[in-house]
Amino acid sequence: MSTAARTPQQDRSRATRQRLLEAAVDCLAELGWNGSTVTVVAERAGVTRGAAQHHFPTREDLFTAAVEHVAAERLAALRADTGELPPLGPARTEAVVELIIRLYTGPLFRAALHLWVAAATEEPLRARIIALENRVGRESHRAALEFLGLDEGTPGVRETVQATLDLARGLGLANLLTDDTQRRSGVVRQWSAMLQAAVDGAAAVPVEQN
Amino acid sequence: MSTAARTPQQDRSRATRQRLLEAAVDCLAELGWNGSTVTVVAERAGVTRGAAQHHFPTREDLFTAAVEHVAAERLAALRADTGELPPLGPARTEAVVELIIRLYTGPLFRAALHLWVAAATEEPLRARIIALENRVGRESHRAALEFLGLDEGTPGVRETVQATLDLARGLGLANLLTDDTQRRSGVVRQWSAMLQAAVDGAAAVPVEQN
Repeated sequence: MSTAARTPQQDRSRATRQRLLEAAVDCLAELGWNGSTVTVVAERAGVTRGAAQHHFPTREDLFTAAVEHVAAERLAALRADTGELPPLGPARTEAVVELIIRLYTGPLFRAALHLWVAAATEEPLRARIIALENRVGRESHRAALEFLGLDEGTPGVRETVQATLDLARGLGLANLLTDDTQRRSGVVRQWSAMLQAAVDGAAAVPVEQN
Repeated sequence: MSTAARTPQQDRSRATRQRLLEAAVDCLAELGWNGSTVTVVAERAGVTRGAAQHHFPTREDLFTAAVEHVAAERLAALRADTGELPPLGPARTEAVVELIIRLYTGPLFRAALHLWVAAATEEPLRARIIALENRVGRESHRAALEFLGLDEGTPGVRETVQATLDLARGLGLANLLTDDTQRRSGVVRQWSAMLQAAVDGAAAVPVEQN
């Protein structure tokens, strides 16, 4: 990325924006929606409230943009590291499942969860979070397919990958109040083995129809 | 259950308590933690605020008891209906997975989710919700094993059942802001097939060690 065309002022503005977005995610993860105001985030980012409002006119703008930005950054970081993954096979499957679940058990998921639950009862947030959830969900699904080297054309693959992301969300929730690391490691191992078996068995295991 | 030993006053008190608990879950599911006060619940239950406080001295008492009570009732209702389930095999597995996931995508889970997320940032709730989560989690795990006719002594079974409950939590979350029924049905079908294959294959599929 060339920065030659940007003025120092544009660089400063971009850096401020970036600091605000990162502070907003940390703030949400730590303090929840009730405790997360533009003022608190501005303070944490070392920016005036006026500057924060210049970048993000409303509280909803700030926090929605923050979760989207940090999610995109984390996904890009994972993509940059795929060269480090083992070749396709059970070891890679387990490594990828671990990566995905690590993403869902850290501060980013915690922040998103607070926003998500607030959106269930706050109208101005609701529509924005539904749209955000769709975009981030689609991106995560595509990345998971890519990392696992799976073809969505194979029957059952789409649902298996969706189940993996749903499981990750559930494990994220289970990690909210207590450190669930130990229990989770058994689940991740077992899930990885089942996922591998499902994709090895040419995707969907036939289900008896009732 | 004999009611012969109870006085009419005890019956009324029990009925009041029951109405409060059910109203508290509905209230949480609809209005979230911020909107759920003892006053709102008392009104919805058609009980005076004083009577509500006689049964539940604090807001935390009321909502924690409500989620625990309704969870126990739902589980008991499922237990009472196990005679209707198909015999052990793929059809039963899918029916049980559906039952579990239905439990996690209804108002009870929604209420629990609001309480859970509030507990992440509200100290008086935190310890109580951790304890509640442990008790309800243990009960749900035991019921799932029972319904699926699985023996936890078999390697991998415990983790597979845990994964099923984690998946259910994730699907509950995915259903919070939008109706996820259609997407979910594919995930449930696929997961049921994977679960059946895992238990048929004498539990854990071996995982390559790296």
